[in-house]
Amino acid sequence: MGKNFARKDIQAIGGYTPGEQITGRRIIKLNTNENPYPPSPKVGEAVKAFGWESLCLYPEPTALPLRETISRIFGIPQDYVVCGNGSDDLLTIALRTFVGAGEAFAYPEPSYSLYPVLADLQAAVKRPFQLTADFGLPEDVVAQAGDAKLLILARPNAPTGNVFPMAQIRKLCQEFPGVVWIDEAYADFSDDNCVSLVREFPNVVVSRTFSKSYSLAGLRLGFAFADPGLVYEMNKLKDSYNTDRFAQFIGQVALEDQEYLKANVAKIRATREAASATLRARGWEVLPSQSNFLLAKPAHRPAAEIFRELRERGLLVRYFSLPRVDQYIRITIGTDEQMAEFLDAVAELDR
Amino acid sequence: MGKNFARKDIQAIGGYTPGEQITGRRIIKLNTNENPYPPSPKVGEAVKAFGWESLCLYPEPTALPLRETISRIFGIPQDYVVCGNGSDDLLTIALRTFVGAGEAFAYPEPSYSLYPVLADLQAAVKRPFQLTADFGLPEDVVAQAGDAKLLILARPNAPTGNVFPMAQIRKLCQEFPGVVWIDEAYADFSDDNCVSLVREFPNVVVSRTFSKSYSLAGLRLGFAFADPGLVYEMNKLKDSYNTDRFAQFIGQVALEDQEYLKANVAKIRATREAASATLRARGWEVLPSQSNFLLAKPAHRPAAEIFRELRERGLLVRYFSLPRVDQYIRITIGTDEQMAEFLDAVAELDR
Repeated sequence: MGKNFARKDIQAIGGYTPGEQITGRRIIKLNTNENPYPPSPKVGEAVKAFGWESLCLYPEPTALPLRETISRIFGIPQDYVVCGNGSDDLLTIALRTFVGAGEAFAYPEPSYSLYPVLADLQAAVKRPFQLTADFGLPEDVVAQAGDAKLLILARPNAPTGNVFPMAQIRKLCQEFPGVVWIDEAYADFSDDNCVSLVREFPNVVVSRTFSKSYSLAGLRLGFAFADPGLVYEMNKLKDSYNTDRFAQFIGQVALEDQEYLKANVAKIRATREAASATLRARGWEVLPSQSNFLLAKPAHRPAAEIFRELRERGLLVRYFSLPRVDQYIRITIGTDEQMAEFLDAVAELDR
Repeated sequence: MGKNFARKDIQAIGGYTPGEQITGRRIIKLNTNENPYPPSPKVGEAVKAFGWESLCLYPEPTALPLRETISRIFGIPQDYVVCGNGSDDLLTIALRTFVGAGEAFAYPEPSYSLYPVLADLQAAVKRPFQLTADFGLPEDVVAQAGDAKLLILARPNAPTGNVFPMAQIRKLCQEFPGVVWIDEAYADFSDDNCVSLVREFPNVVVSRTFSKSYSLAGLRLGFAFADPGLVYEMNKLKDSYNTDRFAQFIGQVALEDQEYLKANVAKIRATREAASATLRARGWEVLPSQSNFLLAKPAHRPAAEIFRELRERGLLVRYFSLPRVDQYIRITIGTDEQMAEFLDAVAELDR
């Protein structure tokens, strides 16, 4: 090994590990919370109609036409909207805009495993707070977050799938002196959401993605709502042209087909409830989910073993070797057929 | 104004200003160094054939199939390649990987105006060095860069269009103790390039983009070559899924059509030489360009006035109100027809 030219703190970390993307053999992929259904057929038509010759020109830097569509559909002014190359891009922008090197960043545990990685990349001080025994928000979250500049939480949370009560969220937004970022990647699968809070609080951001409910994980497109004061500063941190022409165009088409979105989400919610009921009937502990995945604890055998043996059968789920969730597997909701195969397999394996 | 939640140093800066993207009236756009020709017709066919249903899945995190294509075409192993959401994404990754807050970053002046902005966003110490009177690299560049962790230069340089001599570049790579990043956004328009240096030096990165020679500015796709040791660390900083499925696919198709690329580049080089000759014949000072643009000084009137009056006629060029280049306008090479209109207009305006 020669000299390592990276920052010392970067050398010391391992980076984020995305879920496996296996190709080449028949697998059922229930491991990265993708949508098992294709995007709206209108997306398919739009791809054929896409003005590819215009790719020689840069995209609109702030994705204005897409922001206008988002604005109309959500009933939020377009200057409250910022778009990103996936909501991961927006989360990176969050850390870089609001947290200087050596400043603190608060986030729950267990939650999205990217949050502490983003803190490391920004040389921020990590200030995790433990969720309660049933994975709820602790009452003293504001005290625990202390002087953190930014507090991110996911609602629904990942990998637990539950939502924190709205009254608690509202109280947090009122009392926390820094920015509260609510990562709503899974909110379309939930009974309610926090979007309206950005009109009430100047310190609140709500982020969304096309990766889950819109079946567009491969497109890399996300957006966030926040007070224009916050948007103004975040725009300085984003790459000038962070969303491409194709994504801006396809994003608009997907948003316009709210009927398809609703039908897609309704199917996944129904499949989720049926799979939960089946697993519970077999003695599994299944956390109440408002998302497109389940966190579930096998009745008879260790989760890590079930995970490995499912994998050998071509059934990919996610296992986190992390405190508090290492007795569970996380199962993305697939089609009814995929879930039937999964449920048959666990009936054989977990006894 | 309420409380500003952004980092104090971010509040204080203005951010990067991209060139104007005007729509809605007939304009000739010679202001942002886009390619005036559409992408390869094979890109058009590929768009129609794109498997849009697969957009429900995340992309390959490191763009492996695209990296394999790049590897084959450039004759560089794929573990020397990292892909980005445009080469701006890679430049951001450069600053974040190699320069901690408070550490120094060296870059030439005048050069790409994004460099100092990236330094500000990373809270890095800016250490610009002045190019010589004819916009060459100063002999004492290593001494001037001092203990900077990263030195970025563009070759061909922007907005000047010239290339620094290869012998000087090689000497810099040998003598500079940090990372030397050579931004080759415009290298396809040049007589030579620095790609082979990454096999010789463990501290050298060469970045490329699809935005210029491949006519794909709207796609947001770039790549960089570097020793696998550098690539390993840069991968920690990039978003897990920074390049999307569509871009990975289209990028491969565009790369495979090297014949179209060569013909496109040959046309632009020929137009560039003809336009240079015409301007020089009219008394303009035109810097020798190895890129797809010209930096040129009007013979009779101030550049800022010519810029404004061209703009009124729908002819957009770029004017930089910056030291050493504020007597010039930068003209992207358009089609022969566009350049004829431009040359006719300046013949009227500059007398």
